[in-house]
Amino acid sequence: MKELEFVRRIAHKFKVKKPVIHGIGDDCAVLQYTKEKYMLLTCDMIIEGTHFTKKTSPYRIGWKAMAVNISDIASMGGVAKYALVSAGVPRGKGVKFLKEIVNGADAISKKFGVKIIGGDTNASDKTVLNVTLLGEVEKKYLATRSGAKIGDLIFVTGTLGDGETRHLDFLPRIKEARALVTNFKISSMIDLSDGLAMDLNRVAEASNVGARIYRSLIPLAENAPPPRKIPPRMTQIDEFFSRGEDFELLFTASPRESKKIIEQIGEKNNLPVTMIGEVVKKRSGVKLVEENGRVKPLKPVGFKQL
Amino acid sequence: MKELEFVRRIAHKFKVKKPVIHGIGDDCAVLQYTKEKYMLLTCDMIIEGTHFTKKTSPYRIGWKAMAVNISDIASMGGVAKYALVSAGVPRGKGVKFLKEIVNGADAISKKFGVKIIGGDTNASDKTVLNVTLLGEVEKKYLATRSGAKIGDLIFVTGTLGDGETRHLDFLPRIKEARALVTNFKISSMIDLSDGLAMDLNRVAEASNVGARIYRSLIPLAENAPPPRKIPPRMTQIDEFFSRGEDFELLFTASPRESKKIIEQIGEKNNLPVTMIGEVVKKRSGVKLVEENGRVKPLKPVGFKQL
Repeated sequence: MKELEFVRRIAHKFKVKKPVIHGIGDDCAVLQYTKEKYMLLTCDMIIEGTHFTKKTSPYRIGWKAMAVNISDIASMGGVAKYALVSAGVPRGKGVKFLKEIVNGADAISKKFGVKIIGGDTNASDKTVLNVTLLGEVEKKYLATRSGAKIGDLIFVTGTLGDGETRHLDFLPRIKEARALVTNFKISSMIDLSDGLAMDLNRVAEASNVGARIYRSLIPLAENAPPPRKIPPRMTQIDEFFSRGEDFELLFTASPRESKKIIEQIGEKNNLPVTMIGEVVKKRSGVKLVEENGRVKPLKPVGFKQL
Repeated sequence: MKELEFVRRIAHKFKVKKPVIHGIGDDCAVLQYTKEKYMLLTCDMIIEGTHFTKKTSPYRIGWKAMAVNISDIASMGGVAKYALVSAGVPRGKGVKFLKEIVNGADAISKKFGVKIIGGDTNASDKTVLNVTLLGEVEKKYLATRSGAKIGDLIFVTGTLGDGETRHLDFLPRIKEARALVTNFKISSMIDLSDGLAMDLNRVAEASNVGARIYRSLIPLAENAPPPRKIPPRMTQIDEFFSRGEDFELLFTASPRESKKIIEQIGEKNNLPVTMIGEVVKKRSGVKLVEENGRVKPLKPVGFKQL
């Protein structure tokens, strides 16, 4: 079953009230914190065989586990502050391996002002790492998945399709997210961890809208690998759009704000962003417009499936 | 290498300053929160093959993962509030398995007033579950590992040695911990997750003291299994004292407070506690006094080793 469906069921089961502002169903949980700020709380687990291989260096494993969590904080418009790291490490690997994991997590933490304040180490058959990250965001800058409005434009940062080649040492888009939320009114935001198809559907579902994106507008990474053998029940269209781990930001803004954003686009402004489509009525669904004008449904088929 | 040693090295690397009150090296990280309260943050991972078996029911896995974290909050004198749950589940297991994990975690969460506010699901070869728990504690009630003083008496709650038979459905000692911190001055506290030998050494190390406990005073569980085959480098004494997963509380109090505690001991007062020894000078080490009066060192050999 797709994670989207499972999360929907779980979200219903665990409906939350204040002081929990947002519970299950966004990149971070949002809690009351200070008068001006919300607390952001997120956790992501990475597992040998799913998110990295037996051959991945422990330094990169530590880096990636921290990076994916910082990316979740970025997608809510926040700043990352404190981290807890839980590790399961094969008995035979020894302390050096664990130390290298910590070094990797520490290196990226330092880059983004994160302090590692706790942890848990365990023996495990395969390597597994969980990072919990506590962040904060000014109430006025909070971005969620659920604010997209009909008529909004849809943007992504950076280029897509080559997550496979850089997911182990990517830099989460915190700087760009902060530039966006502090300079513009962003109506919704998510990080692209599980592929454009899945994550765009998440925004549409949470915002109760539809979406239409254009293949000709999608900023393809130069070194994006060619389409792979298509898994069963996937069409060619799915394969590209279900490529996960780009860790770019997908966000929406009103036409008025979009105009301002487009005027300032450019690396110089920390705004390496591209407009890829528009928000439409829910009953129009989530669709891709091909270069020949044909419109195809974009199903929530993604990188992360059970 | 023993976790104690690894944590010591790590704790040195990540020395923290305010607003982090305590970082790595206690059951929870302690952060500034409100005027009267600290925030407690803890995470624990449980892994198939280490903390449960292939045959353990998913409900019990969910229950245990939440319970061990609530126990960490208890050991700091706090109350558990919000949880994030990360799961890695074998692809073949299906949604029912994951749902049962959530049901187990939810059942104990409800019992202890914990709200599950976020999560992450992944495919994994073996089942792994990480729970992050956010709690709070009034500043005046915070208990840590590091406050034991020479002359203090050492206590444990409940009975020891049968963790093996009840680690999958135990009730963390929140109620008892709150009764202790709100009615008495507790000088230090820890939960017994990795065995009396390891956890007593942790308190001694953090408090810069020694400890002496008496075998005749230790409240042995009626159904504690007989000593097992002794692992290499362990002596008979180690085997019993390295039995993990009792999840009882080990705490210390001054002689004056201890007198008050002893007077009120009993299930009626939520104080099922037993005095087992005393805090001594650091250079006296951590020792066990046998029933025949012989004194033996109690090495930090524990349940959880890499």
